[in-house]
Amino acid sequence: MHVSTTKSLHARWRTLPVGKVQLTGGFWAEKQAINRRVSLRHGYRMLGQSGNLNNLRLAAGAGEGAYRGPVFMDSDVYKWLEAASLDLANAAGPAGADPELEALVNEVIALVAAAQQPDGYINSYYQVNKQPEDRWTNLDHDHELYCAGHLFEAAVAHHRATGERDLLDVACRFADCIDGVFGPGKRDGAPGHPEIELALVELYRETGEKRYLDLALFFIDARGKGRMRGYGRWGAAYHQDHVPVREASEVVGHAVRQLYLAAGVADAYLETGEQALMDALQRLWHDATARKMHLTGGYGARHEGEAFGHAYELPSDECYCETCAAIAAMMWNWRMLLATGDPRYADTLERSLYNGFLSGVSLDGQRYFYVNPLQSRGGIARPEWYGCACCPPNVMRQIALVGNYIATTDDMGVQLHQYASATIEATVGDKRVVLAMETRYPWEGHVHVTVAETGGGEWTLAFRVPGWCNHAALWLNGEIIAGGASDGNYVTLTRLWQPGDVVELDLEMRPRLTAPNPRVDAIRGSLAIERGPLVYCLEEEDQAAGVDLLDVRLAPDADLEAAWRDDLLGGVVTVTAEGYVADVRDWEAALYRPAPVLETVARPIKLVAVPYYAWANRTPGAMRVWIPTH
Amino acid sequence: MHVSTTKSLHARWRTLPVGKVQLTGGFWAEKQAINRRVSLRHGYRMLGQSGNLNNLRLAAGAGEGAYRGPVFMDSDVYKWLEAASLDLANAAGPAGADPELEALVNEVIALVAAAQQPDGYINSYYQVNKQPEDRWTNLDHDHELYCAGHLFEAAVAHHRATGERDLLDVACRFADCIDGVFGPGKRDGAPGHPEIELALVELYRETGEKRYLDLALFFIDARGKGRMRGYGRWGAAYHQDHVPVREASEVVGHAVRQLYLAAGVADAYLETGEQALMDALQRLWHDATARKMHLTGGYGARHEGEAFGHAYELPSDECYCETCAAIAAMMWNWRMLLATGDPRYADTLERSLYNGFLSGVSLDGQRYFYVNPLQSRGGIARPEWYGCACCPPNVMRQIALVGNYIATTDDMGVQLHQYASATIEATVGDKRVVLAMETRYPWEGHVHVTVAETGGGEWTLAFRVPGWCNHAALWLNGEIIAGGASDGNYVTLTRLWQPGDVVELDLEMRPRLTAPNPRVDAIRGSLAIERGPLVYCLEEEDQAAGVDLLDVRLAPDADLEAAWRDDLLGGVVTVTAEGYVADVRDWEAALYRPAPVLETVARPIKLVAVPYYAWANRTPGAMRVWIPTH
Repeated sequence: MHVSTTKSLHARWRTLPVGKVQLTGGFWAEKQAINRRVSLRHGYRMLGQSGNLNNLRLAAGAGEGAYRGPVFMDSDVYKWLEAASLDLANAAGPAGADPELEALVNEVIALVAAAQQPDGYINSYYQVNKQPEDRWTNLDHDHELYCAGHLFEAAVAHHRATGERDLLDVACRFADCIDGVFGPGKRDGAPGHPEIELALVELYRETGEKRYLDLALFFIDARGKGRMRGYGRWGAAYHQDHVPVREASEVVGHAVRQLYLAAGVADAYLETGEQALMDALQRLWHDATARKMHLTGGYGARHEGEAFGHAYELPSDECYCETCAAIAAMMWNWRMLLATGDPRYADTLERSLYNGFLSGVSLDGQRYFYVNPLQSRGGIARPEWYGCACCPPNVMRQIALVGNYIATTDDMGVQLHQYASATIEATVGDKRVVLAMETRYPWEGHVHVTVAETGGGEWTLAFRVPGWCNHAALWLNGEIIAGGASDGNYVTLTRLWQPGDVVELDLEMRPRLTAPNPRVDAIRGSLAIERGPLVYCLEEEDQAAGVDLLDVRLAPDADLEAAWRDDLLGGVVTVTAEGYVADVRDWEAALYRPAPVLETVARPIKLVAVPYYAWANRTPGAMRVWIPTH
Repeated sequence: MHVSTTKSLHARWRTLPVGKVQLTGGFWAEKQAINRRVSLRHGYRMLGQSGNLNNLRLAAGAGEGAYRGPVFMDSDVYKWLEAASLDLANAAGPAGADPELEALVNEVIALVAAAQQPDGYINSYYQVNKQPEDRWTNLDHDHELYCAGHLFEAAVAHHRATGERDLLDVACRFADCIDGVFGPGKRDGAPGHPEIELALVELYRETGEKRYLDLALFFIDARGKGRMRGYGRWGAAYHQDHVPVREASEVVGHAVRQLYLAAGVADAYLETGEQALMDALQRLWHDATARKMHLTGGYGARHEGEAFGHAYELPSDECYCETCAAIAAMMWNWRMLLATGDPRYADTLERSLYNGFLSGVSLDGQRYFYVNPLQSRGGIARPEWYGCACCPPNVMRQIALVGNYIATTDDMGVQLHQYASATIEATVGDKRVVLAMETRYPWEGHVHVTVAETGGGEWTLAFRVPGWCNHAALWLNGEIIAGGASDGNYVTLTRLWQPGDVVELDLEMRPRLTAPNPRVDAIRGSLAIERGPLVYCLEEEDQAAGVDLLDVRLAPDADLEAAWRDDLLGGVVTVTAEGYVADVRDWEAALYRPAPVLETVARPIKLVAVPYYAWANRTPGAMRVWIPTH
């Protein structure tokens, strides 16, 4: 999950090392505190209760009873290890060290190491239930390579966060084992669930071992030959095996598979610079964002197959929008941003981050959504874990990592992409630069940056102006230096910085109404409320008593009013709008009536919207993002 | 499928015996001719190729190779037998006898009889793959009782059509076997897939054996105890096992299961008159038709689980609308009509019959839809058979039976429900009545009935005025006797009939626009074209070159023009409307844009609509029923 492009030849921008961005307060620091204090502990308990840890113990020759859960149980352990490792890297910040968590991490690493077989292989499902000769016989469905990828990601994160090599050595031994099996002149085949591709590139970046990059490229090239049986209506397209990666132009099939694959291909591009890969990625990205993305930055229109639908098939109620798909999309967009410097990727990442991803976890950090619809008729609540528990530990690693999306560097300066109170240590050329950022983002659009250490010499500070922002202004030491209309790009300031220089960015943050592409049938005639990076929704609980969310209407020219509510949902800005409740009594007995149907009488009401990410944290009532206008 | 209420104590209306309605020409006679000449032959071949017949041979100790296909393969054989038997009953009409088909029927009956075990049990899957002690151990999923039900229906139909007892005796032996296993003081349990309930009631009606009725009631009462594991998000509701039948108020779970169950409960009511059953049926019917029915009379919003969705969840593209669900809904509505005499049930039956059911078969009779969406983005075509081939032989038996939906009797007279050129022989009290009906329905609303035999004495002739019809007129021997506005009911004429009396009914049949309930998000802001009982759709092929059906608009006050097109789709009335094509170039790069979005420039075009049932009989291009107005 953490990406290092510090040595990537084809990266436009370089990431900062783990730990070099420390959140100091505000929205994400609060999320990280809950992630550490509640979620990571809860995750460890659940991995124990659900059998994941016992499966590894069984593989190590200890443990009790039988293997439990689906074939990919190990991957949840690895995702948790990665999350906890990334959280340990946040110990340099105000949160401080967490020796108890560190002890849990070391205990689990020892368990993984004990499970590893002499030749480097690890997969508790195969070790417990199968024979060695069964390995790699069901690449389409059995997730051995997928689990390996998550091990590699965890190992890289742990090494970067702590400098310890123990898990990294385990990972390299397994990678060497796989490299001994697969590759040109060896066994052919691609994993049924992509993930190892991006993980092998990261393992290459961390170890310098080029065989790992080559193996990643091999798995990418092995895909698209129509060899996988696939699933249901999709056939091989379910596994993105219907067309070679370089020829793909549509995101199809299982959404998380497709998006992990795209992230891995972007990693390959960052190292190889192969234009055919970037061309394919840009075609896929256009298809994903201009035809198949929900407003929340969620992906996957269908429950069936956890899959992408047709272009413009974007139902609000029965969409899937798996939390893992939003995470995968962020991973992809972050790599595209690093490769190209195009702010559209940062905009798209931000849309998922604050909406379709963040809805995946409850405000208290111990309940999780797998599916994130944009409409509920009531009764939907987050469970505390899942039989297929891919999402909860994925949420944990994403939240632990979020500081890393804030800043990058190049030879000329520092780029700020996300806004959060944080200290940022960067290296520009040979200069050490330290920035202190303060902001109440996403609630307010004011960002205050103090240049604490300048490193001497001239360099450029760049601020992303989000695509949603129509008016931005930049101030240096109290004097305005840029402003006015923004075209959704970066505003820059190049100078010989002095310690204590203050740069302030003002992003106009008015609540706004958003209209859907008219090809999207499911939300025709409806509008959504957004403010800053946040998508809003109506929850039943906030409306006047007796209002059915099936019958609300929004005036298309409604005045929208934003207000901070300290007491609500952990503190949120609400948006209030003029609306109506339609009288639908004439329709009680009929679904269809002869046109024209006389306008229904509508009663004016105030509609109260809250941020989508915070929905379903109270009584599980009805909810809707898109509000009909008639 | 065929229902006999001639002795049902709680039937308001009595059905006519098999063979007493003979189609003499026009729409349905043509469908029946293709059904006999093409579909029934094709079905026999497919049952051979797919292994269904061989499975029965294997069960009989002959056959070759292994059992093939899903557990319910026998049911397809029984449905085909029922269809062919009902078709044999049509031999008394102009179609004449079909000795070749009769020979095939007898061959298959002999095969079924040979497969029957000494204790009466028949199920080729269990006989070939399992041991006798495995019987009835997986009622939730293994369809033994479902297959039995289809055998009983086939046997009853064959006996009614031919008077032969051979298949009926096989059925009774199996029913006795089941009755020896299940019931009070014996084994408890309900079938995972309802079907046997309605079949046992029919077997009771045909044999007079009250144990069969009691067993049907037992299975109905055994349901709703939450004992079935169910499926996915639905749990036990998937099998309608979550709540006792008498307490149910919503149609839920697998649509065909729910609707077959409802038909069986209606059969139970027809025999027992238990008000609690009728109350439940009416609640379910309201939920089905006022909240969960597509305009085509199709049911089942979701591919996942082949299931009902939420109330008002009615997507046009990803709905399921299984052909078997439309058939099941007709079976239910027909029984509700027989029980109550309420014309709403006939209206709803007619909606499925001409639309969501009839789309299930190609015009040439040898290709079948399982899923019947109301929108296609292209590429959807009917296959000639399915691995799970429940729908094709279900279509065959429905078409063979359709004449039976035309007329009923009571002590006072004859009721006409559906209009088709046909001769009708009915018994009113002790009077033999023969009617000759001529009509070009559904293309024209004129119906001409000659009373050929009166039976003497006074009786009443009733004509259904469909709910879609606003103006109806009735003429007797050339003189108008009733007319004007219709309230969707029956118009009646009571007199001392004279042979040769002519009654004519005129149903105004103008093309019309239909609006959806505003709670249905998926079709908000859209209208559909209907004419008479037919739902219309736009197919890409009929529009001007280059028009994308994603971008068409219908003027809400469009003039609609109907025209007979002899050369198109076997002869249809098309409807032409004023429309537009929206210019969506501004939206190429974006799914979402700040509101207000300026109106797109729209280019006027003529939209040409064809009957929905006839779609996908040419190049498999785009199609849509609901047309946006803006």
